[in-house]
Amino acid sequence: MYPSEHVHEHERGLSEQHMRPPPPADRRADFPHLSEMQTRWNDNDVYGHVNNVVYYAYFDTVINRYLIDHGGLEIEASSVIGVCVESQCRYLESIAFPDRLEAGLRVGRLGTSSARYEIGIFKEEQLCAIGHFVHVFVDRATRKPAPMPERVRTALASLIR
Amino acid sequence: MYPSEHVHEHERGLSEQHMRPPPPADRRADFPHLSEMQTRWNDNDVYGHVNNVVYYAYFDTVINRYLIDHGGLEIEASSVIGVCVESQCRYLESIAFPDRLEAGLRVGRLGTSSARYEIGIFKEEQLCAIGHFVHVFVDRATRKPAPMPERVRTALASLIR
Amino acid sequence: MYPSEHVHEHERGLSEQHMRPPPPADRRADFPHLSEMQTRWNDNDVYGHVNNVVYYAYFDTVINRYLIDHGGLEIEASSVIGVCVESQCRYLESIAFPDRLEAGLRVGRLGTSSARYEIGIFKEEQLCAIGHFVHVFVDRATRKPAPMPERVRTALASLIR
Amino acid sequence: MYPSEHVHEHERGLSEQHMRPPPPADRRADFPHLSEMQTRWNDNDVYGHVNNVVYYAYFDTVINRYLIDHGGLEIEASSVIGVCVESQCRYLESIAFPDRLEAGLRVGRLGTSSARYEIGIFKEEQLCAIGHFVHVFVDRATRKPAPMPERVRTALASLIR
Repeated sequence: MYPSEHVHEHERGLSEQHMRPPPPADRRADFPHLSEMQTRWNDNDVYGHVNNVVYYAYFDTVINRYLIDHGGLEIEASSVIGVCVESQCRYLESIAFPDRLEAGLRVGRLGTSSARYEIGIFKEEQLCAIGHFVHVFVDRATRKPAPMPERVRTALASLIR
Repeated sequence: MYPSEHVHEHERGLSEQHMRPPPPADRRADFPHLSEMQTRWNDNDVYGHVNNVVYYAYFDTVINRYLIDHGGLEIEASSVIGVCVESQCRYLESIAFPDRLEAGLRVGRLGTSSARYEIGIFKEEQLCAIGHFVHVFVDRATRKPAPMPERVRTALASLIR
Repeated sequence: MYPSEHVHEHERGLSEQHMRPPPPADRRADFPHLSEMQTRWNDNDVYGHVNNVVYYAYFDTVINRYLIDHGGLEIEASSVIGVCVESQCRYLESIAFPDRLEAGLRVGRLGTSSARYEIGIFKEEQLCAIGHFVHVFVDRATRKPAPMPERVRTALASLIR
Repeated sequence: MYPSEHVHEHERGLSEQHMRPPPPADRRADFPHLSEMQTRWNDNDVYGHVNNVVYYAYFDTVINRYLIDHGGLEIEASSVIGVCVESQCRYLESIAFPDRLEAGLRVGRLGTSSARYEIGIFKEEQLCAIGHFVHVFVDRATRKPAPMPERVRTALASLIR
């Protein structure tokens, strides 16, 4: 129902061929952390599928939940917090409420005060969307970059692939 | 308050320098279409600024409103609809409810059945975020790519920069 | 397109007659404060109209914007903040993106540390939804009720009808 | 942290005593259907708790998921659909991402073409919010009230308390 495969076929044509790279083939096993992701009624937009905006709410949720559960992030209290400076998503297969999804999380690059996450949205074994999200860790008060806490670094290092 | 400028400075350092390209310098005049964008109370997240997810709702809104007003898109009736296959955003300066924003829209590439939009989010003259959004136009019923209607093409062609 | 008037007719029947009170007849002039409210693409749900949830985002926005503009509320700094303890909405006529709406605001009851707002959502002269929202003002740190600041009280008193 | 109990105490005072009824004491066992409800990062607003608007997304989700799973509702195809004509919520105890919640669902009144649902939001055994939601079932095309399908009626009848 979703245009992706047709699009890629179609884009072999001259005029639009360079518009997007070939679709990724990541599997669930390519993500060291997987988390169930519930859909909601109003995730669906007027065309009957999860709206493109909502995928980023899934990204935000799997990342921050991991940081809370494994990296000791305290939303209200931590002196160093992660601020999003870039995000991106490619939509491969449509999904819709009431689908039950999984969000896969891995870390593509880990700096002193920044991390690049890669997120895959799966419906069973099918990769439906893939994207990335860059956090810069900053001092909560000054909003200047600050080294991420050691516990965050350890938690994120275990997700590097 | 937002880490962008500090980050860029910071990223001149060795370890993280290649993480992101230099910040763009687009101005309002670089976007042929500009539309006011209201913020809402719950656009702000727990850190006091518009959540990264919400920018994509601004993107969606400026694009579809343009297609409705200028391209004859009828959400409920058009036989060819635009489906998002990719989106991306870079966050440069923080914004917060109750800021009044403007979304600038231009078209970066126009194919037979696809369009790549570029969107800038401005607070007065300040570029706060910039991103892109790729629509593939599909037959509403089959969801296979279809040439965009002539009226849509004309409307989008006038936004090419 | 919306069931309200038919419903009310229908509900004159025996079995469902007591389900809801008669539809209100409030006009724009019954609200001392009116504020434009933009719709967004993903306000619409799969049935093609603004989702019932979203109306409460309009309520939140018109109330807090008024408190910021007229009552001196500083989201990040005020020591006394308003917390919602009850909200309600009746949906009378459907609305849909890209409608341009107005939210009317008045105060129905003003206590020492609480206020009951009444909000009407209008499309031109047509009342499309009406609801209420109760704020209890609390100390930001302890979350115990606190008298609302004098400037808030004055601002809200001017909205009593 | 939430003002409810203090408020009720406080409201024993003269001026605000009649503002709200006493807090309900419903338990999980008072709801014949219970469904897990995940919170998301951006459910939290600037005050650090789930925004009042979001509770209605939980309501929508537990109701429609029940109708799909047990009442045969097909979002894209059913000729009779449920349209919300009224909703209401009382907020008793604050909740916040990443809390794991349960939504309890029961039916308070079942008419020929309408249903009144009652929903409780629980964090473990604690009732955090309670509200109602009225669906009028309508013909998808004409939007006039229509008797709910027999399978929906049966599913909802089993939730009457």
